[in-house]
Amino acid sequence: MSIASDPNRLLPAEPGVRAIARSLLEQVQDLPIISPHGHIDADMLLHDTPFPDPAALLVSPDHYVTRLIHASGVPLDQLGVGPGARTEPRTVWRHFCAAWPLFEGTASGYWLRSEFEHVFGLTEEPSEAAADALFDTISARLKDPGFRPRQLFKDFNIEVLATTDDPLDDLAAHAGLAADPAFQGRVVPTFRPDAYINAHAPGFADNVTRLVQSAGDGKSGYAGYVTALENRRRYFIDHGAVSADHGVRTPLTLKLDRVEAEALFEKARRGDVSAAERDAFEAHMLYQMARMSVEDGLVMTIHPGSFRNHHPGTFERFGADTGHDIPFAVNYTEGIRPLLADFGTAKDFHLVLFTLDETVFSRELAPLAGFYPAVYLGAPWWFLDAPDAMLRFRSAVTETAGFSRSAGFIDDTRAFCSIPARHDTSRRIEASFLARLVAEHRITEAGAARIIVDLVDASPRRVFKL
Amino acid sequence: MSIASDPNRLLPAEPGVRAIARSLLEQVQDLPIISPHGHIDADMLLHDTPFPDPAALLVSPDHYVTRLIHASGVPLDQLGVGPGARTEPRTVWRHFCAAWPLFEGTASGYWLRSEFEHVFGLTEEPSEAAADALFDTISARLKDPGFRPRQLFKDFNIEVLATTDDPLDDLAAHAGLAADPAFQGRVVPTFRPDAYINAHAPGFADNVTRLVQSAGDGKSGYAGYVTALENRRRYFIDHGAVSADHGVRTPLTLKLDRVEAEALFEKARRGDVSAAERDAFEAHMLYQMARMSVEDGLVMTIHPGSFRNHHPGTFERFGADTGHDIPFAVNYTEGIRPLLADFGTAKDFHLVLFTLDETVFSRELAPLAGFYPAVYLGAPWWFLDAPDAMLRFRSAVTETAGFSRSAGFIDDTRAFCSIPARHDTSRRIEASFLARLVAEHRITEAGAARIIVDLVDASPRRVFKL
Amino acid sequence: MSIASDPNRLLPAEPGVRAIARSLLEQVQDLPIISPHGHIDADMLLHDTPFPDPAALLVSPDHYVTRLIHASGVPLDQLGVGPGARTEPRTVWRHFCAAWPLFEGTASGYWLRSEFEHVFGLTEEPSEAAADALFDTISARLKDPGFRPRQLFKDFNIEVLATTDDPLDDLAAHAGLAADPAFQGRVVPTFRPDAYINAHAPGFADNVTRLVQSAGDGKSGYAGYVTALENRRRYFIDHGAVSADHGVRTPLTLKLDRVEAEALFEKARRGDVSAAERDAFEAHMLYQMARMSVEDGLVMTIHPGSFRNHHPGTFERFGADTGHDIPFAVNYTEGIRPLLADFGTAKDFHLVLFTLDETVFSRELAPLAGFYPAVYLGAPWWFLDAPDAMLRFRSAVTETAGFSRSAGFIDDTRAFCSIPARHDTSRRIEASFLARLVAEHRITEAGAARIIVDLVDASPRRVFKL
Repeated sequence: MSIASDPNRLLPAEPGVRAIARSLLEQVQDLPIISPHGHIDADMLLHDTPFPDPAALLVSPDHYVTRLIHASGVPLDQLGVGPGARTEPRTVWRHFCAAWPLFEGTASGYWLRSEFEHVFGLTEEPSEAAADALFDTISARLKDPGFRPRQLFKDFNIEVLATTDDPLDDLAAHAGLAADPAFQGRVVPTFRPDAYINAHAPGFADNVTRLVQSAGDGKSGYAGYVTALENRRRYFIDHGAVSADHGVRTPLTLKLDRVEAEALFEKARRGDVSAAERDAFEAHMLYQMARMSVEDGLVMTIHPGSFRNHHPGTFERFGADTGHDIPFAVNYTEGIRPLLADFGTAKDFHLVLFTLDETVFSRELAPLAGFYPAVYLGAPWWFLDAPDAMLRFRSAVTETAGFSRSAGFIDDTRAFCSIPARHDTSRRIEASFLARLVAEHRITEAGAARIIVDLVDASPRRVFKL
Repeated sequence: MSIASDPNRLLPAEPGVRAIARSLLEQVQDLPIISPHGHIDADMLLHDTPFPDPAALLVSPDHYVTRLIHASGVPLDQLGVGPGARTEPRTVWRHFCAAWPLFEGTASGYWLRSEFEHVFGLTEEPSEAAADALFDTISARLKDPGFRPRQLFKDFNIEVLATTDDPLDDLAAHAGLAADPAFQGRVVPTFRPDAYINAHAPGFADNVTRLVQSAGDGKSGYAGYVTALENRRRYFIDHGAVSADHGVRTPLTLKLDRVEAEALFEKARRGDVSAAERDAFEAHMLYQMARMSVEDGLVMTIHPGSFRNHHPGTFERFGADTGHDIPFAVNYTEGIRPLLADFGTAKDFHLVLFTLDETVFSRELAPLAGFYPAVYLGAPWWFLDAPDAMLRFRSAVTETAGFSRSAGFIDDTRAFCSIPARHDTSRRIEASFLARLVAEHRITEAGAARIIVDLVDASPRRVFKL
Repeated sequence: MSIASDPNRLLPAEPGVRAIARSLLEQVQDLPIISPHGHIDADMLLHDTPFPDPAALLVSPDHYVTRLIHASGVPLDQLGVGPGARTEPRTVWRHFCAAWPLFEGTASGYWLRSEFEHVFGLTEEPSEAAADALFDTISARLKDPGFRPRQLFKDFNIEVLATTDDPLDDLAAHAGLAADPAFQGRVVPTFRPDAYINAHAPGFADNVTRLVQSAGDGKSGYAGYVTALENRRRYFIDHGAVSADHGVRTPLTLKLDRVEAEALFEKARRGDVSAAERDAFEAHMLYQMARMSVEDGLVMTIHPGSFRNHHPGTFERFGADTGHDIPFAVNYTEGIRPLLADFGTAKDFHLVLFTLDETVFSRELAPLAGFYPAVYLGAPWWFLDAPDAMLRFRSAVTETAGFSRSAGFIDDTRAFCSIPARHDTSRRIEASFLARLVAEHRITEAGAARIIVDLVDASPRRVFKL
């Protein structure tokens, strides 16, 4: 039997623990997928656009995949990355197949193997020899109407899918899907204002100008800026949004008085600002975003701690999100305090905290989530969205915060076909962790069964107000 | 069989390893409890005060418990927390019972379950439905003379219990217990001078004034201050104290010359001091405490790295120690160096280092304890006093420092009835860790049996000079 | 059967996983030892110098061993440490034997046990009672020609051994070994320029003067300094060197323009330099070392994050490398960026990153190695070169970087007789980790067999250009 089909895949090896895990897994295996945070394109679902080819579907846009092939020495343009890529899809695919052994033991390797088997019905592993045949087989499948996005959405048993959107997006695709009687799924936008708040980012001033002009109710300056953000949040809520996401550099927050905030805003717009002032402005705006969430009810999620575009040469040539964002240490305890001092016990405020720095799981996040009613633990994210890292997460947070403070699984993916494999991985790891606790007589098997259903199904609905 | 009664509880699931763990556990299961650091009230033992009611015994004073119920949305006043709490004990108890599922997988959940079964003989788990009946049952038990503190002290097989005390405490309760022929246990005070050393804390100036006036031998200023601290330490030693405990913000130490120290002291008393100067003063005083320990023989314990009273609103309304102290990263290697440079090899000086930041276990604490004769590894503390965290601790420190540099288990508790469950947890986890090493042929079973007895019994006696 | 002979030693306890591990181990158990980084003395091999006595062989020079005995209260001079040590070898040995139980569960304990059994054929464990008999037995063995370095080199099945050398070393020993037809092994030098680059170190100015005078091609100042470093690297390459090693305080790198670099160089030579300027100079020189590696092909290895000579009194009396180097937190993501910005994708540049701070494994090193073709993951080093730490390393890096980005095992040892035990430990742990992935159906057993051979044999050859 292949790895991806083995019913015991990802479960603990010890037979007694495995049997418990199998039984827990049965409780959740057929539950619908709830995906409250990700990067799927709503237009693709609106128009039910066929996937172009195997490389464009599975390789070029997935920086989890291209990064490791790049590390092995294949230039990114050979992988179809970047705006000007001209490499033939078949060539990209050959590189990918030749690089297949690199993915052994990685999360991406597991997801891909699972997709090949469960989505495409393939029985052969990728290899240099099999590359062309595989390319042809998958290409043929992609022409089949059964492989169009809407049919897969149904086959994957997705109930809710959140996209990530620019505040000035008109959300026409979301409106179109909601109005389409032929589409039964729920696709909701997510407000992601980074480009309008991150004063370090290139384009900040222009973005702000566009924002104020289009949504500032005719006001100018800081007042127009805040009004425009509030208005766009309202627009998102009217189009079904349940959360606002913040990809900040650090989780620093700061409450400035209006005069200070206005002054920093004007300096930041002019680009006449020190690094410390930019940091202060961003910290203030993260605080403001929490204030708005308290007022308008959008769940707030924070994804900090990634040094974006670490390699300048790659950024210049291929752009952002091309595999060289590198995590660093974060300090939630002091950084998030001004926000929590004012809003940590605010009624119905939900704040989901993510990290790429595992050290904060036991030291900061579990203690915060174990006291503040507003704080929930985000699932292990990005580099940590993998079996062993998920087990370390549960081990690190549970003894302080229990299971009730978890926000549920988030797939955060740009790779549509990986969604079932990612949720399946998460469910198998939750079952594995709980099975160990049962086998060690820390919790009862009945308790574990109740907990896994809550983690997989009720938690994301509750925390993301779905 | 219930979880709390299962003889295999907390032991590894793999049958071979579990059998070894069972056999190791037998070596220590009946050894007396030695508790060299905790927060039990000596007056309660002196007067053998009956416990008032289930809520006051098990819920309201235990911030491990109230914090997680608070996170679920129950305000702290509903849990009987704080000086002005007026909520009926039965109401508090109902909140607790309704919140019982929150504690699945947490250390507190395990301790409570164990107390219910082993101390109160209950067979039913708490639940909303069972709340009132449970309240009545426990209330009835608490009227039984068998549930008075002295009888429980005996039943729990406690040999030594250290309390934590203010330097100006007259220690009358300790003297009374020592003089009472009807009480056979050993209850020793611990010198905890934080309020007189932490220049950031409110009340610092007044505390210092009282200290100097009452114990400064008539001297004033810094000279009187140092003399008063030395005198009070001597007073504690005369009343049986074996250690001095320091709940500092960071483990920073600093040796200032007398003129600098005097100047900072005067500025700190007047409140006319920068944050950096206060830090320097506190670092200097931590160094001075080590100097005094070298001279008078009190074991020095350091508990750093907690951001106390993280939520201002809760602190204002409910006071300190109400569940919102949040850990942050610490730097022992550089911080503790001035102290160790002068005293790290001092004869008979014992320095026990604790942390809430797990990252220092392998990186800093094991290397320090593996070289300096003065340094001992404190047990996993507070948020880390739980099965998985204890296993991570042993895994992180053992390969560098072995077992001989451990200070033994510390329960650090305010919850008297949880003492047996906490020590039982620790013993089961030591057995689990050692059993794995035996099963992997890293140590012999005979060696492991010797080690576990040393860890449970000989280490705390040796390190705490008991 | 003794622990050190048990064929299952260090393997997982669960029978199914263990069987897989045994089978994986068979793939690599007889492969030759490749040791691309260590601290063995080439002269010893050139002259085939007999080992003097058990204490001088196994105790006094091994700071892994002396540090833990020192922590237990035995002064270092009693262990034969330091230049003026006069303690009788037999006395040193008695201290060691009495301290033997301290090493239970440590990496050193495992290595020593293995050496006693497999190198010296001893069946009795060290103990106070057995000390003298053991001393005599080992002393007798050391007179046997079979215990001379060259024979052991052959018995240990060492194919390549790298030493660590001062840039001004004439490498006569290496040349002698290469020219000796009676010696079949390959012994290569490693360029380690710390003493000429670390501007904080005592002796820096004198070292630089000697360097420039002897290899600066007659140039003076910064130009002569850079030329001399380049020349000596070339000299090392001509004598077989494949790598340059950098034991820096932090992984900070910086690209200064020539004028700034010259100015800092002159200030550093005069000792007229701030701490920040010295840091900047060192960061610049680390960048320069990478530039030279790109040009001359030497593999670059970086070993940062150790606070050297933590205890001033011990350093003054016994010198460096005497057991009190203590790790601290490092920041690779920001520190190494200037270097990687310019050289991270340079052709044939190999950069192997080590750490004593485990937190960077998943957070920084795996993401870096998973994108930059130049970056390889150094094996768990020093305090982390031990079974559990190795397993944590693999768990932390594999899900992001797979297995292909590993540089292979590095023994880094001064203890010649420990080499087989160290490599054996590493192979057993690789087998253990891979066996778990197989048992959990994450990789196939055939894949695991391919991976372990690559990790043990092909990786070090490929990454170190052997």
